Amino acid sequence: MDCLLSRLPPCVRAAVEPYSSSVSAEHAQLLGVALVSLAAVYVGYLYLLSQREAAVTFNVPLPQEVRKSGEGKKWDEVQGQEKRVLEDQVRGKWNDKLIMSYCPADGRVLGNGIKPATVEDVNAAVRAAKAAQREFAKTTFAERRKLLRTLLKYVLDHQDDIVTACCLDSGKTKVDACFGEILVTVEKLKWTIDHGEKALLPSRRPTNFLMMYKKNKVIYEPLGVVGACVSWNYPFHNFIGPVVSALFTGNAVVVKPSEQTAWCTSFFLNIVRGALSSCGHSRDLVQTVVCLPAVADTLTSHPDIAHITFIGSRPVAHHVCASAAKSLIPVCVELGGKDPAVILDDSRTVCNLPTLASVLMRGVFQSAGQNCIGVERIIALPGSYEKLISMVEPRIKSLRLGSILLDTSTPDMGAMISPASFDKLESLIADAVKQGARLLAGGTRIDHPIHSQGHYFAPTLLVDVTRDMKIAQEELFAPVFLVMRAESVPDAISIANSTVYALGASVFGHNAADVQACVCGIDAGMVSVNDFGAYYAVQLPFGGVKGSGYGRFAGDEGLRGLCNMKSICVDRFPTLISTAIPPRLDYPIQKSGEKDGPKAWEMCRGVVETGYQLTLGGRVAGILRLLRNM
Amino acid sequence: MDCLLSRLPPCVRAAVEPYSSSVSAEHAQLLGVALVSLAAVYVGYLYLLSQREAAVTFNVPLPQEVRKSGEGKKWDEVQGQEKRVLEDQVRGKWNDKLIMSYCPADGRVLGNGIKPATVEDVNAAVRAAKAAQREFAKTTFAERRKLLRTLLKYVLDHQDDIVTACCLDSGKTKVDACFGEILVTVEKLKWTIDHGEKALLPSRRPTNFLMMYKKNKVIYEPLGVVGACVSWNYPFHNFIGPVVSALFTGNAVVVKPSEQTAWCTSFFLNIVRGALSSCGHSRDLVQTVVCLPAVADTLTSHPDIAHITFIGSRPVAHHVCASAAKSLIPVCVELGGKDPAVILDDSRTVCNLPTLASVLMRGVFQSAGQNCIGVERIIALPGSYEKLISMVEPRIKSLRLGSILLDTSTPDMGAMISPASFDKLESLIADAVKQGARLLAGGTRIDHPIHSQGHYFAPTLLVDVTRDMKIAQEELFAPVFLVMRAESVPDAISIANSTVYALGASVFGHNAADVQACVCGIDAGMVSVNDFGAYYAVQLPFGGVKGSGYGRFAGDEGLRGLCNMKSICVDRFPTLISTAIPPRLDYPIQKSGEKDGPKAWEMCRGVVETGYQLTLGGRVAGILRLLRNM
Repeated sequence: MDCLLSRLPPCVRAAVEPYSSSVSAEHAQLLGVALVSLAAVYVGYLYLLSQREAAVTFNVPLPQEVRKSGEGKKWDEVQGQEKRVLEDQVRGKWNDKLIMSYCPADGRVLGNGIKPATVEDVNAAVRAAKAAQREFAKTTFAERRKLLRTLLKYVLDHQDDIVTACCLDSGKTKVDACFGEILVTVEKLKWTIDHGEKALLPSRRPTNFLMMYKKNKVIYEPLGVVGACVSWNYPFHNFIGPVVSALFTGNAVVVKPSEQTAWCTSFFLNIVRGALSSCGHSRDLVQTVVCLPAVADTLTSHPDIAHITFIGSRPVAHHVCASAAKSLIPVCVELGGKDPAVILDDSRTVCNLPTLASVLMRGVFQSAGQNCIGVERIIALPGSYEKLISMVEPRIKSLRLGSILLDTSTPDMGAMISPASFDKLESLIADAVKQGARLLAGGTRIDHPIHSQGHYFAPTLLVDVTRDMKIAQEELFAPVFLVMRAESVPDAISIANSTVYALGASVFGHNAADVQACVCGIDAGMVSVNDFGAYYAVQLPFGGVKGSGYGRFAGDEGLRGLCNMKSICVDRFPTLISTAIPPRLDYPIQKSGEKDGPKAWEMCRGVVETGYQLTLGGRVAGILRLLRNM
Repeated sequence: MDCLLSRLPPCVRAAVEPYSSSVSAEHAQLLGVALVSLAAVYVGYLYLLSQREAAVTFNVPLPQEVRKSGEGKKWDEVQGQEKRVLEDQVRGKWNDKLIMSYCPADGRVLGNGIKPATVEDVNAAVRAAKAAQREFAKTTFAERRKLLRTLLKYVLDHQDDIVTACCLDSGKTKVDACFGEILVTVEKLKWTIDHGEKALLPSRRPTNFLMMYKKNKVIYEPLGVVGACVSWNYPFHNFIGPVVSALFTGNAVVVKPSEQTAWCTSFFLNIVRGALSSCGHSRDLVQTVVCLPAVADTLTSHPDIAHITFIGSRPVAHHVCASAAKSLIPVCVELGGKDPAVILDDSRTVCNLPTLASVLMRGVFQSAGQNCIGVERIIALPGSYEKLISMVEPRIKSLRLGSILLDTSTPDMGAMISPASFDKLESLIADAVKQGARLLAGGTRIDHPIHSQGHYFAPTLLVDVTRDMKIAQEELFAPVFLVMRAESVPDAISIANSTVYALGASVFGHNAADVQACVCGIDAGMVSVNDFGAYYAVQLPFGGVKGSGYGRFAGDEGLRGLCNMKSICVDRFPTLISTAIPPRLDYPIQKSGEKDGPKAWEMCRGVVETGYQLTLGGRVAGILRLLRNM
């Protein structure tokens, strides 16, 4: 017996031991075997349960440009119509017959161009999504988790391919793509797998004195077909983020990616559809429509679209919201920001400036500054101000720009999506300098020595910027390390709040009261303390206020935002008590010949007092009034 | 000792008794006295705490029409310009110089007319609200609860005055006003006092493996100045509802009430401002602007308005949302519905039909059907259908219409707000009859024998309505008991879902599976089981989907919707560990002469795998990749 016991796992042994003295050796052996068998069955059950949700492996064809990323012709080597379309696109003029894709880092042509979707294409996409969603709405959370795990496995197994496709279509570096496309996407997938169901469980709600025989809850149901219009700066993540949330909540989704990154989106669509079919769901659940703005209105005012997630710029948002108003579609509006990073000057923070400078540089130069939560303004207190500047100046000057394609190694910073903003950037910087700002590095576009067709802007360090300068007010979306001096903590908060924007913010400091003052005092939807953008890496609700939009994606709120929140009120003891209208208030209130109207109103008054009087005496008076007039 | 013990309260005695045998009588006496003193101090503390939030009593001048509600002249006795303005208003034509108020139940003139607000008036109101909010944002929840208690006390003490003002301006009965204006308002006040703070407490959020050194939360901050455009059907409740939510969340609020009920709103504004000043807050926190649509655009696109609650009709909602798009203001859109009540025919439900018929009649005829969650369609299964009709027919025919002013008692049903919808209602009913519906009662407007200037529509019973009839599709907002036949539960759900609307719904039945199928299957934002509108009487989130709008007011979500949800990510152990960029990824990534770009990207890949690989093996491989490339 003891021998048997000693071979059992400790928890089983603990369960068996109390009986070992009072039962015979054979009984104990039987008991032990039974317990071990039970445990085995339980482990097997857990295994089967996990298998039910296990990832499926699948493959999709890789675009040939990803397979052979060293090869391909530049857009100035292309002939005829395609060349004209490309030249127009670089000047910001889009062709409604053909959208050509090319790599902004070196001008390499990607694919053979895409025919923009027509109004009928958009309608067909919504129709197909709607039809597919009817069946999909019935899937369990376990089935949806299996789908997300399948997608997660693909992303982990094909990081290099996805990153390369992003770099090709947007001109960014592989490090930038790994942080901004892969890390945040796998985090979103994992968060949704781990916490999504909890966010969508029915939520109990309280009842009150008069309605104590009721019980109340809120449930979350799919909306149907949701839409997403997303920006080009994170072509993989911005596409797949809304898809993950839509599918997990049981919706179908139609995504309008940017024309700028149409080429890689078709690869990403294949990935999502590959996951869908390998898990036995309809590929029609996820649709993309690449189209010009006039046609996009068909999507953003489509009566079968139940919700729109918009990630983009303010002028376009006005247009999308006005279009959505035609069919009264709710919009989650995620615009840009002018995100401040406030650097306090307590001794520990000053000591820590070298570490902090590295975090700030990542915050500014990630994706060449084309990051909606990029650090747009560094607001430093006197004790940190000059030290920080002297630390970053040589580092910013030494940054190397380039493409992942020809360089033998990952450059520090990639290209910009297009040269469209260069005139404005240069003029804003020149204006600031005229008004007293010091330009310590960069400040202009760059003719890259190798990549003459690439769109590059020099890493810029501009200091002594004040809040009245135009450059302190406008979102740059560019690699500009912009430093402003604050005299005190309240001054820093006031500078931070001096723009129309309020998306993200960072506070670097170690004096708890000052940090708290900044966290509470800065207008923002998200704040990281002693970090940059960390709130997004943990899937906190994402979004801003003021000029940065409204609504939240990510987190519990992001999922619930794609649901119909249904309030349900039922009887707690349905066989015992339910609502009945008292005779005095029952229609017709005026029973024949009676003059009892005033009594009906007095009785109502008694009901109100019974339920809501502030004092016990008041409640008793209410009950008496109620009884007198019954 | 025992004598002393027996005089103590039971709970104190229980605490003392164990010691009584082991200590001397004097010690026990001392102990007892000490305990009683402690208890007294604690009770005193609780009392002081409750006093800190106790209601203040205040008074505001009553409108003379409320004081002497029997008197006043009819609008056809008025002379000159005022008479012309009134005649135009009845024909739906508003004057931009003067808004006249009158009682729709008997044509009594109320007040001396109101000058509609100009664009400058609107700007001034927003400016004043904004200035007042800065101070108010700092108030504690206890201070805000005191304010709501003060308001609650006033409402309870002045039920009759408020109800009379509502009846005068909207033509409803006192019973309807007590249910629709008072009961729901005191419930909203009480709910906010009892549960509001909990809904706005910081909410902890999870972190993940890579970010395990972070802790995350979401806090709720006031938005600033919020707006509300509300409808005339519940002039007191619709005005005060958004005010209560706005003030409790620390916002100021500008309300645009309907022109139709401008007169009573000025009394209600005085009440709210009376509560504000008696609690030491600025009266400017709550503003009203009565204006015509062209001027209303100034409010709905005002850059200082951070959120709009819209309660009204679909055509106006399109306009408001388009206007709000100009300043990207989020809108909570609460439109009408075509709310179904599904009557199953299990034996218990059939037995219960008399009780149920009374609830349905309240659901249809409350406020003469001018109720956004009024029952617009009764969808009955075969076993209930004829029985229900024969039960309600005589009762509907016996309903008495009238005004609270001249009648010696409360009539069953009051007037309609205006005769504007009468032509359409009569034609919809006539069309339905042509297509086979049976009109069993009413169906037309009524020339009231006493109140010739009143706007009355006969309580109507229309049965055998089918889903293809226009009357089954459009919201009537009128006293029409409209019955449709369903062949089965799925058929009933399909009929319920056959309109563009999806606001509220009721299900009456006792077969759990069938009830559940209806609760889940009916498109609606809110469902009551075996009741009408009960979800609102317990402050569940209120709102709809599809053509009924979006967003939710009431409940936790209603309060949070008026807040900036701020996501905050901080270090869990700030003195021990915080984010630092590893040297390999630190800018410049290409240290002089080195070709280590690919290593940087490989390291990122390792980070992703460490954090997110699906298997333990995968995670270990990730850690190794990370270490190899560090």
